[in-house]
Amino acid sequence: MKVLVINAGSSSLKYQLINMEDESVLAKGNCERIGIDGLIGHKTADGRQVEKNVDFPTHKEAFLAVVDILTHGDGKVIDDVKEISAVGHRVLHGSEVYKTSTVITDKVIEDIFSFSELGPLHNPPQATAMKACQEVFGKETPMVAIFDTSFHQTMPAKAYMFGVPYEYYEKYSIRRYGFHGTSHRYVSKRYFSVTGKNPEGTKIITCHLGNGSSIAAIKDGKVLDTSMGFTPLDGFIMGTRCGGIDPSVVTYIANKEGKTPDEMSNLMNKKSGFLGISGVSSDCRDLHAAAKDGNKRAKLALDMFVYQIKKFVGGYAAAMGGVDAVIFTGGIGENDNDIREWICSDMEYLGLEISKELNQDASRHDAKFSAATSKVEAWVLPTNEEIMIARDTVELVGK
Amino acid sequence: MKVLVINAGSSSLKYQLINMEDESVLAKGNCERIGIDGLIGHKTADGRQVEKNVDFPTHKEAFLAVVDILTHGDGKVIDDVKEISAVGHRVLHGSEVYKTSTVITDKVIEDIFSFSELGPLHNPPQATAMKACQEVFGKETPMVAIFDTSFHQTMPAKAYMFGVPYEYYEKYSIRRYGFHGTSHRYVSKRYFSVTGKNPEGTKIITCHLGNGSSIAAIKDGKVLDTSMGFTPLDGFIMGTRCGGIDPSVVTYIANKEGKTPDEMSNLMNKKSGFLGISGVSSDCRDLHAAAKDGNKRAKLALDMFVYQIKKFVGGYAAAMGGVDAVIFTGGIGENDNDIREWICSDMEYLGLEISKELNQDASRHDAKFSAATSKVEAWVLPTNEEIMIARDTVELVGK
Repeated sequence: MKVLVINAGSSSLKYQLINMEDESVLAKGNCERIGIDGLIGHKTADGRQVEKNVDFPTHKEAFLAVVDILTHGDGKVIDDVKEISAVGHRVLHGSEVYKTSTVITDKVIEDIFSFSELGPLHNPPQATAMKACQEVFGKETPMVAIFDTSFHQTMPAKAYMFGVPYEYYEKYSIRRYGFHGTSHRYVSKRYFSVTGKNPEGTKIITCHLGNGSSIAAIKDGKVLDTSMGFTPLDGFIMGTRCGGIDPSVVTYIANKEGKTPDEMSNLMNKKSGFLGISGVSSDCRDLHAAAKDGNKRAKLALDMFVYQIKKFVGGYAAAMGGVDAVIFTGGIGENDNDIREWICSDMEYLGLEISKELNQDASRHDAKFSAATSKVEAWVLPTNEEIMIARDTVELVGK
Repeated sequence: MKVLVINAGSSSLKYQLINMEDESVLAKGNCERIGIDGLIGHKTADGRQVEKNVDFPTHKEAFLAVVDILTHGDGKVIDDVKEISAVGHRVLHGSEVYKTSTVITDKVIEDIFSFSELGPLHNPPQATAMKACQEVFGKETPMVAIFDTSFHQTMPAKAYMFGVPYEYYEKYSIRRYGFHGTSHRYVSKRYFSVTGKNPEGTKIITCHLGNGSSIAAIKDGKVLDTSMGFTPLDGFIMGTRCGGIDPSVVTYIANKEGKTPDEMSNLMNKKSGFLGISGVSSDCRDLHAAAKDGNKRAKLALDMFVYQIKKFVGGYAAAMGGVDAVIFTGGIGENDNDIREWICSDMEYLGLEISKELNQDASRHDAKFSAATSKVEAWVLPTNEEIMIARDTVELVGK
């Protein structure tokens, strides 16, 4: 059985075709500049690459191009579109309604549209892409929606409520939702599968660190708390996002600079974090290089990142009454040995002690890097959201 | 030697006259409704109470009334104003300039005025009160300024910087300052004096829980981090304050409700926290009562308060690489057995285990309530900011 995994944006359509017999990726690619002009880049498992300009007035033409490139010419990996048994769609926001992945119906698409206020940049194009996908593949091809928020729906109210008046929860659904749910779910499942441990009674902290970052406290296999909040802005500093700050900083800058809420939102989402602190770059690798060259603000941005993450790890240990494993994933979590070492240093009070040597060899593959004597395990477990989406799709539409 | 301790607001003037021989309070009181009409309430150590209407067009008349009530009539505790050797003034904000208490000069008063942007409700009346005090007592009576922010000035940049663009730190001094510094300092000193421990090498977490609340991580006797930030809004939920929230909640509500930054600030400072969540009261005692009557939102507010504090305690343990003692003070911290018990429960992973029996008897006096086997100590240490102010005053002006 082959599953097509779709991650749609307002002007892009990323796809992966996965063979579920062995969970191998047959081909993947990206349709860019939808609604502008159009460009498709495509790669097959055996190393063939195709790039061509195609006109994409809407997501529908992009889907037609995906079907064409998968079944014809230099990028071909299947003979017939009918070999694709199902399509899994990544969706940003499922509100409080979708607590698990769901077979897509007209009602589901309508609901995803209706959550647009909660995910204004993602939900509308994702719902649009589902409709376009139905037109191209026909309604007989089953589709599944996998929500970034759903894994976090097990949080108790004490963790998901903010301290603002209750009426805003009732009126505008303002609460902590959490994001990267598919990644936190994949990584936590991977941990239980690799170690053979029982989720029941186990306390883990998953750190998805990348350009956007979030941490989750997972007890008994269920999310108890997570750092991203109402939007993906909350938590700690990221590439261009400020993370959690004194909320009075928002009103103070808005007053001083005469900025509208939208301008403040743009400032906090696009110009803050690594970029705003360092003035150098939003990329952690650039900060390392600049810090080594003596740039103090680049060093400060790295210090803040590590320090804020340490506090989240400690805070979530308190939330769960302890921790059995701290797991790193995402672009930074999987690849940045220094960041992992700094976060895990001086954590002996928690029973966490790493082996610096093991940590040096831990990047980019499943690897435990805690010291043999450590009571708390430290792991790198590379994430794979697409596989998680494909698995959910198979599970819901049958094999 | 007798010291007058002053805590001025825009329309009020609280005072305590302290005999530094034995640190006893000779009398204390409050001038209210300054600039409106005027009322002075006064209490002596031996139980005499005086309340009278006096016209207070400005803080100067209030100081004249304080001198009069201390030296004449039913509230008299000294024969002559000259017995007051010095005056200690509480000041909210010392910016990054005042890292310790300071003898007041014209320059200091000017500086305190100049920090008005950082403490708009407090610094201007406090500077005004200093000038009025000089007029009444004469420049020959030395005065000392004790800043709520100064004890926190030892924080490293990684703890005090927010993730917004660096230019806002340079342009508007936006950073974490922390407040309740005099209380955190008093309580930490008290801990070292009661236990005989050396501040060097000791890690403590002081929880000042009251209508406004903050927590500090104190290592080697110096603040490493604290929960209040640029303003006293940051941290966790308080009586009417929201504490830390996803900053996008600020811009979202502002957009939806068409609120100005000042209106948002008012909402987050005055209508949130216990009051906003419960809809019942800003007072923790009322929440307990309502929760016992089955009010779910009152219970939620209590749960959030306890849960958020637990996360701060855990986060600060991580920041310091462990913790030796958790100390409770302030109206809630000193008096609310349940809140203390809930915060300290399931903290065995940290080495903290309390005795429920000792905790029941710990309120309102210096008392250790951790279990005999606990590696981490738990204490109640009632705060006394006025004594701290008086001590600093004596230390700086000589005995």
